[in-house]
Amino acid sequence: MIEELMKQLGSEKVSMNETELTRHSQDESCHPGVEPAVICFPESRSDIEIILQIAQEQHVPVTAYGAGTGLEGGSIPVHGGIILNTERMKRIIDFSPEDFTVTVEPGVTRKELNESINKHGLMFPNDPGADASIGGMVSTNASGTTAVRYGSMREQILDLEVVLADGRVIHTGSRAKKSSSGYNLSGLIAGSEGTLGIVSSITLKLHGIPEHTIAARCTFPTAKACAEAARLVLLHDIPVMRLELVDAVSVGEVNRFGGYQFPEKHSLFFEFAGSKKTVEDEAGLVEELMRDAQCEDWEVAADSLERARIWKARHELSYAYRHTSGKEVLGGDVCVPVSRLPELVDYSRELAEDAHMKAGVFGHVGDGNFHTLIVYDPKKPEEQKKAEQILERLAIKAIDSGGTCTGEHGVGIGKKKFQKREHGEALEIMKEIKQLFDPDGILNPGKIFE
Amino acid sequence: MIEELMKQLGSEKVSMNETELTRHSQDESCHPGVEPAVICFPESRSDIEIILQIAQEQHVPVTAYGAGTGLEGGSIPVHGGIILNTERMKRIIDFSPEDFTVTVEPGVTRKELNESINKHGLMFPNDPGADASIGGMVSTNASGTTAVRYGSMREQILDLEVVLADGRVIHTGSRAKKSSSGYNLSGLIAGSEGTLGIVSSITLKLHGIPEHTIAARCTFPTAKACAEAARLVLLHDIPVMRLELVDAVSVGEVNRFGGYQFPEKHSLFFEFAGSKKTVEDEAGLVEELMRDAQCEDWEVAADSLERARIWKARHELSYAYRHTSGKEVLGGDVCVPVSRLPELVDYSRELAEDAHMKAGVFGHVGDGNFHTLIVYDPKKPEEQKKAEQILERLAIKAIDSGGTCTGEHGVGIGKKKFQKREHGEALEIMKEIKQLFDPDGILNPGKIFE
Repeated sequence: MIEELMKQLGSEKVSMNETELTRHSQDESCHPGVEPAVICFPESRSDIEIILQIAQEQHVPVTAYGAGTGLEGGSIPVHGGIILNTERMKRIIDFSPEDFTVTVEPGVTRKELNESINKHGLMFPNDPGADASIGGMVSTNASGTTAVRYGSMREQILDLEVVLADGRVIHTGSRAKKSSSGYNLSGLIAGSEGTLGIVSSITLKLHGIPEHTIAARCTFPTAKACAEAARLVLLHDIPVMRLELVDAVSVGEVNRFGGYQFPEKHSLFFEFAGSKKTVEDEAGLVEELMRDAQCEDWEVAADSLERARIWKARHELSYAYRHTSGKEVLGGDVCVPVSRLPELVDYSRELAEDAHMKAGVFGHVGDGNFHTLIVYDPKKPEEQKKAEQILERLAIKAIDSGGTCTGEHGVGIGKKKFQKREHGEALEIMKEIKQLFDPDGILNPGKIFE
Repeated sequence: MIEELMKQLGSEKVSMNETELTRHSQDESCHPGVEPAVICFPESRSDIEIILQIAQEQHVPVTAYGAGTGLEGGSIPVHGGIILNTERMKRIIDFSPEDFTVTVEPGVTRKELNESINKHGLMFPNDPGADASIGGMVSTNASGTTAVRYGSMREQILDLEVVLADGRVIHTGSRAKKSSSGYNLSGLIAGSEGTLGIVSSITLKLHGIPEHTIAARCTFPTAKACAEAARLVLLHDIPVMRLELVDAVSVGEVNRFGGYQFPEKHSLFFEFAGSKKTVEDEAGLVEELMRDAQCEDWEVAADSLERARIWKARHELSYAYRHTSGKEVLGGDVCVPVSRLPELVDYSRELAEDAHMKAGVFGHVGDGNFHTLIVYDPKKPEEQKKAEQILERLAIKAIDSGGTCTGEHGVGIGKKKFQKREHGEALEIMKEIKQLFDPDGILNPGKIFE
């Protein structure tokens, strides 16, 4: 198989280097690493076609790998085989500022994309924190802090070029902003974690860069009060750019990690963006709403530096937890109807406290999506077990509350066990679709389904 | 079959009345009517299950029928069989104002839905003009005037309950605002026009009713100039509620139909909605942009009556054309990248003029989606043929411009012939998915695919 890959791709696109094998055995999650047999670095769609053809002929698994920033083990090659790393596929194939669209290869990261388009007054808004590859963001239907305004990755996709397991190449959409023609294959492929095909190019919607931005924060006595105050903003249909909950423990963590001095209280962080007058009005209105909801303080970032500092801090949060020396972190990612958020946040903290585990809660409160990070000592297996049990109970509670076991990280390895509970009979349909697209099971086997 | 339906459903839910057979032979399109053998009026999900079971056993087609406002013949039972009319399924199953969600049966119309929720400060924004049923809107992925702000129907769906051809009942989502769990079946079923399953309940996102609304209009010397001016609004990322192009011919038509006095020129119609200060700012900013783009006039509706009048006129547009005595109207519904819109609008008018046919162009310019209505004399087959040819050439041009043959009306009967051109190899995948969901082909046969 490896010989054939080298012959057809050229040896410079194939690696079995020990460092590379190790790097590709893992993502940013705590799931145990598994080394692939070989790593391929395709440089074009036809390279992807070659890889899939060889894999199909020789019944070898193929797992796509982007920037390696996944949090549920989606790119860990649990059955070995080939890692298809897209990092050499970084071309911007087409950029149409007049249409607010861009077509990119999957290895372009979101920051690289923004660097190349920002100068034209346009931006790609989705921001999961990490500098993920666009292909990886498609595969998990990633979202992040701006989804409250722009939606998840799926809503940004106009077209995908996909190489299927049997070698066929399809386009799932067009460059039109909307369509009622045929079945929605874009939405089906997005979020399928490389189990239905390998995405070779992505056409995305872009947005104008807002003229003016204001960041603000306020605190409340309880996380529940934060969540309730956030609902007021939604009720007034104010198109906030970001609306984040960070609990007191997490504020403390990030303060120590980054040398910040945010009040160590349960906090809401806001960003408003648009024309200058509009965002000033919006910020003013939200301040009124927060004061009515009896916030303890309200602070607007004085300038763009301070604003950048706030969001830098927010993005460092999960790294802050991971930074604690000698400790590891297990993370949950549930999403529930917004009315259930206060209760779920409380439940999450309660579980951690009852187990005497250090934990923080933060997330995209405008979407009902939050993360629970639990710090444990990797040398104490019982601690890891307790952390896993907490996240399991939380996922079950989220599903039973009308929510989902994963709002943005994907199923990967970690959320497989909840699929039946969440999807019921629909899981059988999903398996049948998988069978239809990939009858030999070569595409990222061992993910999503048990 | 009919005996069995009567026995299992009760005769009051089954009709072969001549008037009912005629009513259900058509929608609002010009596609030739075909009478079903029988019409069933299910009152619950279990009635739908019974109908599908009998249809499956006896190999009889089942075509779902909502409010009958379709424009591509999607609900015409071209192979006879059973019409499954959802008009008795009008329950609001769950309304959670605190979560901005509602779960409804498919027969609820969008106006009925809004009547029952508006008093809670919430609205369901999608507005295709006609008072379509929510089930019908799901089936065609409908959108309309507010899609520029809120997206199409697909983006409003949190969960669908679907009865499959083999009797299985699935839920495609949850009540969480976003999810990365499993395959996106909601998006697949939405827009599938009843060919993959029958939707028995729909959970939708709701939005807060904006505090304040402003309507405005302006005119430009050419339709192309209108389209270019509209792009400026998009570039400034101003979250307009509505942004419509209506060409001079169409303004004249609606003036005569409704007794309005709008200037008979190529026009843009705007709606801004949000907090009072914000929308005043937005309207002011857009006025500046339009004046920079050298609009001929700018007029803001003086009060809510005048505002309602503007949108009433816009909604009456297609009826105005249809009203011309002794004439019929054929309509196209293409969607293209916004930069191609001016050219396509010109092309559309050119085709009509070359053929000496009366035609109007109007649409959702913020989405690149527009409609061409061509008036013809049904007593002159060569006129109908010419109208069909114009729309065919327009659809082909739209596809070749990176767009789609239907932005919001669906494929139904009329757009089947363009599916291969638009989707290429992906059409085969769609057919395989159809085969997977409905191996015996009982669900709305003769639609989408040739």
